[in-house]
Amino acid sequence: MALSPLAPAAFPELPPIAGVRLAVGQCGIKYQGRTDLMVAELAPGTTVAGVFTRSLTASAPVEWCREALPGGRARAVVVNSGNSNAFTGRHGEVTVAATVDATAALLGCAPNQVFVASTGVIGQPMSPRLIPSHLPEVLASLGEEGWAEAARAIMTTDTFPKSVTRRAVIGGTTVTINGFCKGSGMIAPDMATMLGFIFTDAAIEAPVLQKLLADSSERSFNCVTVDGDTSTSDTVLLFATGQAGNKSVAKASAKRLQDFRRALDEVMLELAHLIARDGEGATKFVALTVAGAESRKAAKRIALTVANSPLVKTAIAGEDANWGRVVAAVGRAGERADRDRLQIFIGGVQITADGAALPDYDEGPVAAHMKGRDIEIRIELGLGKGEVTVWTCDLTHGYIDINGSYRS
Amino acid sequence: MALSPLAPAAFPELPPIAGVRLAVGQCGIKYQGRTDLMVAELAPGTTVAGVFTRSLTASAPVEWCREALPGGRARAVVVNSGNSNAFTGRHGEVTVAATVDATAALLGCAPNQVFVASTGVIGQPMSPRLIPSHLPEVLASLGEEGWAEAARAIMTTDTFPKSVTRRAVIGGTTVTINGFCKGSGMIAPDMATMLGFIFTDAAIEAPVLQKLLADSSERSFNCVTVDGDTSTSDTVLLFATGQAGNKSVAKASAKRLQDFRRALDEVMLELAHLIARDGEGATKFVALTVAGAESRKAAKRIALTVANSPLVKTAIAGEDANWGRVVAAVGRAGERADRDRLQIFIGGVQITADGAALPDYDEGPVAAHMKGRDIEIRIELGLGKGEVTVWTCDLTHGYIDINGSYRS
Repeated sequence: MALSPLAPAAFPELPPIAGVRLAVGQCGIKYQGRTDLMVAELAPGTTVAGVFTRSLTASAPVEWCREALPGGRARAVVVNSGNSNAFTGRHGEVTVAATVDATAALLGCAPNQVFVASTGVIGQPMSPRLIPSHLPEVLASLGEEGWAEAARAIMTTDTFPKSVTRRAVIGGTTVTINGFCKGSGMIAPDMATMLGFIFTDAAIEAPVLQKLLADSSERSFNCVTVDGDTSTSDTVLLFATGQAGNKSVAKASAKRLQDFRRALDEVMLELAHLIARDGEGATKFVALTVAGAESRKAAKRIALTVANSPLVKTAIAGEDANWGRVVAAVGRAGERADRDRLQIFIGGVQITADGAALPDYDEGPVAAHMKGRDIEIRIELGLGKGEVTVWTCDLTHGYIDINGSYRS
Repeated sequence: MALSPLAPAAFPELPPIAGVRLAVGQCGIKYQGRTDLMVAELAPGTTVAGVFTRSLTASAPVEWCREALPGGRARAVVVNSGNSNAFTGRHGEVTVAATVDATAALLGCAPNQVFVASTGVIGQPMSPRLIPSHLPEVLASLGEEGWAEAARAIMTTDTFPKSVTRRAVIGGTTVTINGFCKGSGMIAPDMATMLGFIFTDAAIEAPVLQKLLADSSERSFNCVTVDGDTSTSDTVLLFATGQAGNKSVAKASAKRLQDFRRALDEVMLELAHLIARDGEGATKFVALTVAGAESRKAAKRIALTVANSPLVKTAIAGEDANWGRVVAAVGRAGERADRDRLQIFIGGVQITADGAALPDYDEGPVAAHMKGRDIEIRIELGLGKGEVTVWTCDLTHGYIDINGSYRS
């Protein structure tokens, strides 16, 4: 698979996180000659938060994580690519239990401290013995390095590994946040499965961590779409090992969390952007803002309708400043809109007012903007204060190539 | 544009309808060397019914038709292709008024008996004088023949004209229904604009006609989707000239309407199917049934989610029996679904039960079915009695070719 033209020029080197050790392995689940298993071992006392797909046909690993999450503690996360273990019935639960039990036995922890995630083809049973048989060897190679390899082991149709790092200060103590993810979609909607794993050495209680993750997801992963298809397996987990030495944070409103929130938001947002930049077949990265809606919820529904419109996405692929398709998508989004107040801007240039194109609208600079890699569309509804930005990519022949042949 | 591989082998010859005269013209609105104007003149006393896009950014012609419809009478419908006169502000209203007034003056009728529809590019002002300047010449050529030419004049990205005819009996009198349409979508959702015009010589009061059209639309045009994009211009108009000689029908529940309803449903459904068969880039015609839902509304929402899923549509294009993507789309549709009761059938072959593939599932016959032109998918939810069938097509490179370059 050719590297996405929207891939970053360089990949960041992620520093170690005290209390996190990583390893990868090759189980031959689907792919040959590449890694397909990633294990992160977490120090005792690590707290955990998670957000998951809203799909009603969620995978066995997602159901397990939901069950384990209230425990609030994690000692390991085990992730495989090549098979999502979704819609595999009772067999899928057996496979999850086998992986969890084997990991718990090897690390000497309770099963509900082992989190799992799987991504790949739906509906194909996966042998319960496959991952456990590789675990002893994989765990023997655990180390503080290897973040790039970990990010690579969880890839499916991704054309580049996606990782971000930030530092923050909590009450005078510097902490680190490392994250990596895979996929080309979002929690809802989504395309190929979106998996994200974020690790910090900060000490933060599990309920606080959950609040931080939920807030940040809403502004990042939940604002990215590639094709509107939500996966059965979407999972984002955030682990805090508590090894940095800050006094553990027990309240989400604590003022000393301010810088950590900022850093976590940056990690989550950058990971989310990387997903849109690696959207299947993507050649353009699109930032789409809807402002002046009746509410943030209305703004988001309109923004996602435009961002998922095949006609808008193919126009962007064709470098066509076809703002009429944006108008049409706004009109069918199901939220209040007033044709005569609607203002559309592309690349910062206002195109419409009073229910029509501006009399002196010059397509020249807009056409030039459409030829770039980064496209900016702004829609002002003139009705209220609801505003949101979502990110997406264009719809190209590459998407058809990938999805018309690959069974994912 | 190459003819859709799903086009019917032959086009029906439509008989004359007493009270309907047709003409076409070339205004050079956008296309060169082809017709782009269609006028149907209707006998005095003709009743009319209409259904329109639910878009909040509806075109000027749609707004005019909504205003004129309560009058219940029609003397003409004037349709152009190449420009949708949508999002053209006050200018658009002036253009509609000019066309309506010129037609009314030439035919000697009230303006609210002239209906208009436009399809093509959005947001480009259209000269108010263009259509009126061609009207005298076009009206001079009105005749009872020319149904195929009329169907052709309203095409945009269509690769074949779409027309259907049926006969029915009302109280011993034989009546005829002719219909033609253009587009590759539906009233909501829709893709390129969907326009449909249906004519009958039956005598039916306007309120009754409206009820018949609304009922039939819900089971036909509103159950077809190509890409989920609703147009600003979707319009279906039904005209009844009353020239057949039946006693005018004044009640929608009248028993003698039964055969007419049957025939109208057939015309509407066949026209709707032709639209999916001419979906931009389509190579497969897909009939998708959802049964056992909590309600018909729930069934339809699930069916449209699956039918609009880019992952399902690209899998069909790739002839891949990827039922896992069907599961994923059902799971995210936002209606109740129970993974363990879900049964999926492709080409009549049951694939899933108890939350997994059947143990003895043989992909052979399903893979063979996927290689055909007509694909059948059935989803049984096992929750209630809600059932619906929707029709769609696959998502191919052809769609990207057409929409990544053509400004429609």
